[in-house]
Amino acid sequence: MPKFPRADRMQDIQPFRVMELLSQARQLEAEGRDIVHMEIGEPDFPSPEPVIRAVNNAIAGGDVHYTPATGMLVLREAIAGFYLKRYGVLVDPGRIVVTPGASGALLLVLGSLLNPGQTVLMADPGYPCNRNFVRFLEGRSRSIPVTADSGYQLTADQVEANWDETTTAVLLASPSNPTGTLVPPDAMQAISHIVQQRGGRLLVDEIYHGLVYDSQAETILGLNDEAFVINSFSKYFGLTGWRIGWLVAPEAAIPDLDKLAQNLFLAAPTPAQHAALAALSPETQGILEQRREAFRQRRDYLLPALRELGFDIPVTPQGAFYLYANCERFTDSSLEFAEALLEEAGVAVTPGLDFGSNQPEKHLRFAYTTSMERLEEGIRRLRQFINKT
Amino acid sequence: MPKFPRADRMQDIQPFRVMELLSQARQLEAEGRDIVHMEIGEPDFPSPEPVIRAVNNAIAGGDVHYTPATGMLVLREAIAGFYLKRYGVLVDPGRIVVTPGASGALLLVLGSLLNPGQTVLMADPGYPCNRNFVRFLEGRSRSIPVTADSGYQLTADQVEANWDETTTAVLLASPSNPTGTLVPPDAMQAISHIVQQRGGRLLVDEIYHGLVYDSQAETILGLNDEAFVINSFSKYFGLTGWRIGWLVAPEAAIPDLDKLAQNLFLAAPTPAQHAALAALSPETQGILEQRREAFRQRRDYLLPALRELGFDIPVTPQGAFYLYANCERFTDSSLEFAEALLEEAGVAVTPGLDFGSNQPEKHLRFAYTTSMERLEEGIRRLRQFINKT
Repeated sequence: MPKFPRADRMQDIQPFRVMELLSQARQLEAEGRDIVHMEIGEPDFPSPEPVIRAVNNAIAGGDVHYTPATGMLVLREAIAGFYLKRYGVLVDPGRIVVTPGASGALLLVLGSLLNPGQTVLMADPGYPCNRNFVRFLEGRSRSIPVTADSGYQLTADQVEANWDETTTAVLLASPSNPTGTLVPPDAMQAISHIVQQRGGRLLVDEIYHGLVYDSQAETILGLNDEAFVINSFSKYFGLTGWRIGWLVAPEAAIPDLDKLAQNLFLAAPTPAQHAALAALSPETQGILEQRREAFRQRRDYLLPALRELGFDIPVTPQGAFYLYANCERFTDSSLEFAEALLEEAGVAVTPGLDFGSNQPEKHLRFAYTTSMERLEEGIRRLRQFINKT
Repeated sequence: MPKFPRADRMQDIQPFRVMELLSQARQLEAEGRDIVHMEIGEPDFPSPEPVIRAVNNAIAGGDVHYTPATGMLVLREAIAGFYLKRYGVLVDPGRIVVTPGASGALLLVLGSLLNPGQTVLMADPGYPCNRNFVRFLEGRSRSIPVTADSGYQLTADQVEANWDETTTAVLLASPSNPTGTLVPPDAMQAISHIVQQRGGRLLVDEIYHGLVYDSQAETILGLNDEAFVINSFSKYFGLTGWRIGWLVAPEAAIPDLDKLAQNLFLAAPTPAQHAALAALSPETQGILEQRREAFRQRRDYLLPALRELGFDIPVTPQGAFYLYANCERFTDSSLEFAEALLEEAGVAVTPGLDFGSNQPEKHLRFAYTTSMERLEEGIRRLRQFINKT
């Protein structure tokens, strides 16, 4: 029996722990247990009504053929309009590429930039797929441990210190998943400057930008129009399962991104492009702003509640829908803690392991993607669980 | 000004010529010209009515959240049912991965198999993305020139002769794009045997399987359940813009494909999964079989009409919706011929260049993805054009 081929990269690419946890949770639910879901990075709100209406119309009208690889022009124009209105930043629609989710955007950007062996700097903890995308393309990710002192974000000094001849790009996420923290404007400016000076590329994941609660996040594009911005209709816009996102790129990079999109995707899904267009309408914006306020209220409940229970959350997360909590007061294995919490108390949370190797055993991610009532129930169960153990 | 990073692969990955031609055609249409489209690999039929209904219900019911990375179980079960009913082949739903189009399937399969420098054997002419996917992953494609003698398909002898220590997989497409020809059963069996013996992997693109006209195509899975099958809801099922396809893989490969799908896609678009499920219903099947008959009639009109004009089409294509025609009687540059034909006669066809380097200048691809009336108009214009030049 011959040994069948398997790419070496498959040894390094890890599945999401949260998926296993989610399927355990679903299993328990199938057995009749009630589970509070604080593990899922997916808002609980349905697709906004104007979105549903627009998609129904488009489908009924037969408008579900392939679009150009970079997306429908009318959608790219609407996204450009969004930058102007929300940030006061002028972006040419020709610099926008509509993608199958932010995942698609990341694949295009990294695929067009990265040679084998070249390095991308990124923060640890961070979104687990980032390093896997880099590995997929035979690049190397340098995951730099970040601490509460810098709001769990890379500093200019860290970028400087970790830059070597293989470094091609720096990837920032602001707000970050799992920490919900922003890159401070001065750090963003300094990092942007270093990257420009070194002739590298700055990639900024702004997919949680719409969900910032105490201030208005500023896009990197206002500062540096050579940066690549990755964004998504999944989070603020609430279109998770539709698989639709976008990227903004420097003009010179567009021909490569276009031909890569042609080859890898043909185009983003057409119904989702219509959904995205409707999501940008003033009518939907009103609905989304109400939802943002609901997320803010949830954060403002959950953050003090977790701190009171004894979880250490040293930085107040400004955005996204995550709290990244130090749990070392209760356990030296966040994975075992999460498993027991699910099994015994029916509360699902994500262990730090999914987000890197910077003290993952001391951390848990709580997502406030469920209603206040469920969050309250989750906290009640968590209190009981902690008191029992 | 520093030189910005650009991946070397971008020099080798080519855009589709047909996209430029399509945008020229659209430009002419915008100027008021009437264009007969025989360049597009996209059926002209709308999404079937039961599909539209099912998607409307799913969206209205809020069922547009992320699905598991390998797709909704109910859809994978329905695909398994399709194999049983159509081919009499038993496929475990656990071996099926629902993907964002056949493009997504190809990326998963090649990504999970191929190390840098490893080789995939494929036929030239062939689908242009295939070699680009391989290059994207730092692999090497060996495009083997095929001729009318083998129905434009690889032979077992060619596979044997081109196999070397870097060979990891053989990719067959049956029916082929651009030639519409099937791999004969005995060749399929012989190639399958060689690949198994050598410890490689056999990948079979069956995306045009539903559109075979004079016989019933047999899936490789009836012969070899270690093969990887790539399929799509775009062509026979008519769901192009939805971006939905699937792959069937050996059981042992599923964990790798699952975690790769998690990382690269999260999951295929949920509305498209509902569309696909409805596309497999008996009600839709009836509609699709009528459409298959319409395609057959178009082929039976276009093939003799082109031959009569002097195009050489030595093998009768059994499937897909393409005719691959030798045009050397008229030109020594199919690209210039196609450009002049569009400009002067308003007929868009695809020059051979998109499909490889095996005498592309002598070939054109005609797609019969438009109505009989338009095909007749196309032939009328083509006749005039030829007589004039």
